[in-house]
Amino acid sequence: MKKLKAGVIGATGYAGFELVRLLINHTYIELAAVSSVSYTGKKISEVYPQLTGICELVLTDEDKVTEDCDIVFASLPAGHSEPIARRCFDEGKIFIDIGADFRLKDEGDYEKWYGRSFEDKELHKEAVYSIPELHRNNLKGAKLIANPGCYVTSVCLGLYPALISGEAEPSGIVADSKSGATGAGRGLSLNTHFTECNEAFAPYKLACHRHTPEIEQVLGEAVKNKLRLTFIPHLLPANRGIESTIYVNLKDNYDFKKLRKAYEEAYADEPFVKLLPEGAIANIKNVKYSNYCHISLHEDSRTGKLIIVSVLDNMVKGAAGQAIQNMNISLGFDEVEGLGAVPPAF
Amino acid sequence: MKKLKAGVIGATGYAGFELVRLLINHTYIELAAVSSVSYTGKKISEVYPQLTGICELVLTDEDKVTEDCDIVFASLPAGHSEPIARRCFDEGKIFIDIGADFRLKDEGDYEKWYGRSFEDKELHKEAVYSIPELHRNNLKGAKLIANPGCYVTSVCLGLYPALISGEAEPSGIVADSKSGATGAGRGLSLNTHFTECNEAFAPYKLACHRHTPEIEQVLGEAVKNKLRLTFIPHLLPANRGIESTIYVNLKDNYDFKKLRKAYEEAYADEPFVKLLPEGAIANIKNVKYSNYCHISLHEDSRTGKLIIVSVLDNMVKGAAGQAIQNMNISLGFDEVEGLGAVPPAF
Amino acid sequence: MKKLKAGVIGATGYAGFELVRLLINHTYIELAAVSSVSYTGKKISEVYPQLTGICELVLTDEDKVTEDCDIVFASLPAGHSEPIARRCFDEGKIFIDIGADFRLKDEGDYEKWYGRSFEDKELHKEAVYSIPELHRNNLKGAKLIANPGCYVTSVCLGLYPALISGEAEPSGIVADSKSGATGAGRGLSLNTHFTECNEAFAPYKLACHRHTPEIEQVLGEAVKNKLRLTFIPHLLPANRGIESTIYVNLKDNYDFKKLRKAYEEAYADEPFVKLLPEGAIANIKNVKYSNYCHISLHEDSRTGKLIIVSVLDNMVKGAAGQAIQNMNISLGFDEVEGLGAVPPAF
Amino acid sequence: MKKLKAGVIGATGYAGFELVRLLINHTYIELAAVSSVSYTGKKISEVYPQLTGICELVLTDEDKVTEDCDIVFASLPAGHSEPIARRCFDEGKIFIDIGADFRLKDEGDYEKWYGRSFEDKELHKEAVYSIPELHRNNLKGAKLIANPGCYVTSVCLGLYPALISGEAEPSGIVADSKSGATGAGRGLSLNTHFTECNEAFAPYKLACHRHTPEIEQVLGEAVKNKLRLTFIPHLLPANRGIESTIYVNLKDNYDFKKLRKAYEEAYADEPFVKLLPEGAIANIKNVKYSNYCHISLHEDSRTGKLIIVSVLDNMVKGAAGQAIQNMNISLGFDEVEGLGAVPPAF
Repeated sequence: MKKLKAGVIGATGYAGFELVRLLINHTYIELAAVSSVSYTGKKISEVYPQLTGICELVLTDEDKVTEDCDIVFASLPAGHSEPIARRCFDEGKIFIDIGADFRLKDEGDYEKWYGRSFEDKELHKEAVYSIPELHRNNLKGAKLIANPGCYVTSVCLGLYPALISGEAEPSGIVADSKSGATGAGRGLSLNTHFTECNEAFAPYKLACHRHTPEIEQVLGEAVKNKLRLTFIPHLLPANRGIESTIYVNLKDNYDFKKLRKAYEEAYADEPFVKLLPEGAIANIKNVKYSNYCHISLHEDSRTGKLIIVSVLDNMVKGAAGQAIQNMNISLGFDEVEGLGAVPPAF
Repeated sequence: MKKLKAGVIGATGYAGFELVRLLINHTYIELAAVSSVSYTGKKISEVYPQLTGICELVLTDEDKVTEDCDIVFASLPAGHSEPIARRCFDEGKIFIDIGADFRLKDEGDYEKWYGRSFEDKELHKEAVYSIPELHRNNLKGAKLIANPGCYVTSVCLGLYPALISGEAEPSGIVADSKSGATGAGRGLSLNTHFTECNEAFAPYKLACHRHTPEIEQVLGEAVKNKLRLTFIPHLLPANRGIESTIYVNLKDNYDFKKLRKAYEEAYADEPFVKLLPEGAIANIKNVKYSNYCHISLHEDSRTGKLIIVSVLDNMVKGAAGQAIQNMNISLGFDEVEGLGAVPPAF
Repeated sequence: MKKLKAGVIGATGYAGFELVRLLINHTYIELAAVSSVSYTGKKISEVYPQLTGICELVLTDEDKVTEDCDIVFASLPAGHSEPIARRCFDEGKIFIDIGADFRLKDEGDYEKWYGRSFEDKELHKEAVYSIPELHRNNLKGAKLIANPGCYVTSVCLGLYPALISGEAEPSGIVADSKSGATGAGRGLSLNTHFTECNEAFAPYKLACHRHTPEIEQVLGEAVKNKLRLTFIPHLLPANRGIESTIYVNLKDNYDFKKLRKAYEEAYADEPFVKLLPEGAIANIKNVKYSNYCHISLHEDSRTGKLIIVSVLDNMVKGAAGQAIQNMNISLGFDEVEGLGAVPPAF
Repeated sequence: MKKLKAGVIGATGYAGFELVRLLINHTYIELAAVSSVSYTGKKISEVYPQLTGICELVLTDEDKVTEDCDIVFASLPAGHSEPIARRCFDEGKIFIDIGADFRLKDEGDYEKWYGRSFEDKELHKEAVYSIPELHRNNLKGAKLIANPGCYVTSVCLGLYPALISGEAEPSGIVADSKSGATGAGRGLSLNTHFTECNEAFAPYKLACHRHTPEIEQVLGEAVKNKLRLTFIPHLLPANRGIESTIYVNLKDNYDFKKLRKAYEEAYADEPFVKLLPEGAIANIKNVKYSNYCHISLHEDSRTGKLIIVSVLDNMVKGAAGQAIQNMNISLGFDEVEGLGAVPPAF
């Protein structure tokens, strides 16, 4: 089978690198082009010595990537993906946006949380937003894919079965999430300066993180009703991983077994989402460097709360891995192709 | 002024060492004896080379400590403090329990959460439980002091002003706490094996941690009513510090300014509890190695929640430092004596 | 092609798990059996939840592994591999020892450094010791392979070209090595307790680490002469990786270009050993989770020293990955099969 | 006793903050002024929330500090201290330079390693360079004190007794040093970005670090002869501490006991330098946050090497603490005043 050519725009950012890392070993893909605004003209292995002797592509610009490739991944700041997506769309190429431009369907939400409007309103209608476990059916043949936010994936995979089970209240939910520092990207900041982040811990963007409306969009669709939740992210002194501890009010006469069953059924055939056995507790360390999401369920019968623990690797299942999973489904490849690495234990 | 003699039982555990570290520099105290079950007969500086040339006391047994000292600190597993406390009490000595034996006032709670009963019921009536900022008035002249749990201190200092302000609902509270690994002590376990704890993150003892009834006791007294909350602790890949993110439902017509004012008033004269200015976010790194507790307040107006961030050093304000603060008040010393170290920035 | 059956004895130790992790994705191997003394009868995914839904083999005993498999890997404490190796050898199976039993060829050295003698002297003659880049030619068809120590691989790959170049003195070499904490294994100890290892750093086993005679054996063979060096290992507060900074006296009229050329030639065709360009500095972070070894060369012209920096992942190129590389060569597979993962950047 | 007024120029850098932290609790000093180029006009507690409620000084400029204070500490980039030192000197104030301007006595060395010349040659003659344990006698009444580099202190305290013992060769010495990331300061860089520094390890500035000639100056004076050594620094994934593993050739008929005795005698009465008992190994964790330096001695009899392990906290004994120790001696205070904090164990 002839390989398809894929390229990565924004390849020297952390999510961009992760795409490169995973695409290099994809059976049906040839990594054909990579671009970077800051390092154009350099070999990517000069920026990432990890790639020495593995990938010696020269970093080019975004035009070259769209020109040379059948599939274009873009990992760019808000607002930068739209025009590239349009070009790809018009030329019949597949565009997968790791950024946020096509995630929110309601332009009002986008304006409120991102401070900008949709430039190309028509194009937004073409975008397929996909956490594959929830939206797999929309993906077949999609040309413009909006890859979800990392926190969004963690919280929505954790909450979805509870909400459709009928055992939990959709109101009053609290999601307390913690992310490794790769979530802040490669850009320098005092918060991610080693000596300020190490042996430190705090929340950030309290009640104002941009992933909030995206979580509410996905879950609102699930319960077919507007849904509001409290979402607070924290910065972990660790490189990778997101852990979400999610607090949900159980209905008055809830049946915890039925609730657990809803999770078992929802994820029984999923290759990447695993409900842990009773008594086990999901831990970031068990999914890092992999596309897996682990979920554990806990009951606080004293207060009538369900506590869901959902963990994933923010750079893989929360970004690059999920993008490849989306691509695999869209193109009819085996869903797990390129994503088979076993999570290391340490 | 003649120094009083103080001793530490269980001096080679982490809280015990921390007491030693702080007592060495206390103006009115002479550290006169230290004991350890595992290392009796060794110099404490052999177990903790940090003390080389600073403290060369030989580790003895608990009898020797109670005999030689006017003030006895004990940092022992549940059930071990009671008989020592009795002996001290009968001999008119001051006993400060860093452990849990005298924290819960309701024996039923103690039986339920600790699986054991009060052996010496009379003695429990003498115990003064004290987070100094909330219970300072009870301390004067106290002979038997129950030092609070680390999580309890963090959550209660964070919640107390909100609850008495009348702006927040006492029901439905969620406290999502994260602790550095010193909280697990010096005993070896797979969870605190470096390669299992580093680059990892997860909750533990979900909805069944023993600090839960203690938090409910302190806050229930504050609101003069039974109170239930959901408390979930997590293990941080860091040595020290507790961060609690606390979610509280605001009353329907709440006034956030009034709520903030309640905190300002509650802690205006407190030497160790600091309400951060609006916009600032409390961070473990700003209080580590110190007796300070920082609190920041945040509003999620979309969901009507108050989010309180409360941070402290689990080994100082959460254990040894608070014990010394309690001792200072009880004995009429300057409350900050021995606790004046400025928190390092890194 | 029918897959060969491989098994891992000691599969719940760190090197054992790493073998499992890598063998699961090997094209020509079926992981058929795993054993553990401590967890016999449990599923390996209960011990390592990373494997949930990926590998659900039940942990058995060593007899079952040797019985069921064509290729047996053993990761065991000193002295435990010999009898298993004998059984495999007699039954015509391939035995690859991740432990130390067959590394030293001189029984006197073994007695001195390991405090035990060769039980089965005949069998030792059959063992092929192999760092593939140095001993590839011995491997073809080998039935009993002694996999080198992690430090040994790092130091010898770093030093070998310098020694055969004729530009460096073989005497007076100092190797100052630092290893991540996985090197100490999964067994609990105070040194690897999180709070004792984190924010700490020190050497250990100064001038008495068992890898010393093994380094001297490999390099002595290279220079065809007895060689002595000073080797000091240190424990890094990190999970993975070995960095060796190696100090070598340059000959009086040394030619640094010629020396660099010796490295270029030695490793030009090597898939896993990369000489970094001038000016670059080898870093553990660029090889972690991979089978790569990066080497950078530096000159201190003021003191006439060559400084070699050699880095690898102690669990992959230093243990499990190199074992698979050895197996691949021995069995005529593509040398890189199963080892193609691109090193992550973070 | 009336307190003397001290000020810190460059107070928002890491060494500057550390001076502030320690001076706040000094019995005979009032911290009277702090300056910062980047944050002038802000309260220092806004930059360092650690100081909330502890120190609310407003950051001013360097002129204000020199004007208001009797003692001026400056922690500035190379070349910036000279003119301030001149002003202080002319006004009879004490100037203590944490920076490098007055460390090297040979202008040729300064030009070679710092790329700049002495602007005020006369002033350099007044400077007293002091590692107190080696140069205490020069300090009495000194007005212009050059505080040594962090690595220099670690290596020289480690080597000095060996060199004067007559048992060790002064040539061929190798110092392999590792520093926590605070050594790189508060300025942002990719190398100290959390995700690039965490789980990473490498040397830097190989054979070209500016502390090299300073080490050679101090030790050359000790042996009354020119001395050259190989010095290689590494960046540790930890906040604080320097560990130096130092390799020295022992003389042919060396007597290790005599050598050890030289250390015992050199540091017998030193409050801050501790020779560890035989068998113990110096570890960064035992001195962090303190002014102590621990030294352990090890023999490699196979290769005739002495291995010295020397550890200290780079920000305290390697910078701010040593500066205060120098000040204490110069002004006739108790040498340990303000430096009595017991090192924490975790």
